[in-house]
Amino acid sequence: MARGAYTRMPVDERRRHLLELGAELFSRHSVAELSMAEIAREAGISKALLYHYFPSKHEYFVATLQAAAADVARRTAPDPGLPPGEALAASLDAFLAWVEENETAYRKLLESAGSVPDVAALIAAVRDATSARILEGLGASDAPPARAVARGWLWFMDGALADWLEHRDLTRTDLRDLLLGVLSGALAAAGESEPAALIR
Amino acid sequence: MARGAYTRMPVDERRRHLLELGAELFSRHSVAELSMAEIAREAGISKALLYHYFPSKHEYFVATLQAAAADVARRTAPDPGLPPGEALAASLDAFLAWVEENETAYRKLLESAGSVPDVAALIAAVRDATSARILEGLGASDAPPARAVARGWLWFMDGALADWLEHRDLTRTDLRDLLLGVLSGALAAAGESEPAALIR
Repeated sequence: MARGAYTRMPVDERRRHLLELGAELFSRHSVAELSMAEIAREAGISKALLYHYFPSKHEYFVATLQAAAADVARRTAPDPGLPPGEALAASLDAFLAWVEENETAYRKLLESAGSVPDVAALIAAVRDATSARILEGLGASDAPPARAVARGWLWFMDGALADWLEHRDLTRTDLRDLLLGVLSGALAAAGESEPAALIR
Repeated sequence: MARGAYTRMPVDERRRHLLELGAELFSRHSVAELSMAEIAREAGISKALLYHYFPSKHEYFVATLQAAAADVARRTAPDPGLPPGEALAASLDAFLAWVEENETAYRKLLESAGSVPDVAALIAAVRDATSARILEGLGASDAPPARAVARGWLWFMDGALADWLEHRDLTRTDLRDLLLGVLSGALAAAGESEPAALIR
């Protein structure tokens, strides 16, 4: 990243650089700790140019989270060439790998959900899309119990991840298999027995 | 509640009244919206007397949440006279009833966890104590998978409750049975087959 030097850069590339810088800065500092002046200095650009890309610090912060969410969605997109159960296992594996690599960013994201409405909305939208994708991928119904279970399971995952990051006494594979087993059991409890059988 | 009148009241009773008032006020207003002057006016006491009980608005807010958490813990305490599975079902029923009665307070509690570290710590402490109580009550082990599953299930419950409060297309009994079924499946996935059988 070109810091401390005003280099000419295409608009898209500059924006991408700024979002990468934001992901890094916000994993070390809270939003309140950083000023737009400091961010511009870290990026090696003028404050005016930074404001040209992002009209406010809040919009910059939310844009970095959206970029992170898009990155996660890309990395966890199910492989259409795999059977549904295997595709889900592979997506879950990719998600756990992302959390391991981006532990601080992941924690900050969950923590900031309570204080930043845009973040809460982003997380809710990701959970809605992901739970719909899971039910569809497994051929489950969208009846209320299945919907509640798919959404609940994503919360379960965040809780189990918090426990895992705190204790680190399960391997990533153990955690993945445990999460898949829990989803299977949860779908069975919701009366979705066939899709549950797909998972194993 | 004696409002608008400076009545003499024993210390404990005054404190309890103030906490009840707080539960009501904070379910309608955010912490930022209320001043200590307004709270004192609502309570019908002087600002000085309010500060005598609670040194700051933040401490008052956290005390009202602690009182609510203590109320929930009392109402959901397992009945030692019942078999473990039935005691758990009864506790869960009591919790769902509390959420129905205190929907706004419940939502606010979860929402404020991200912005108020004391609230996040309170919720984490309640989840730790509750998950330990569940595992012990069901005679499950405290091995890492069982611990992760019990904690994850409490998150699952909050997610399923968010879905339920949004859609309201399951009865409370259906939701309770679904949650118990999910816990049973989750404990089985964690290799705790006997306690899981207890739940049904």
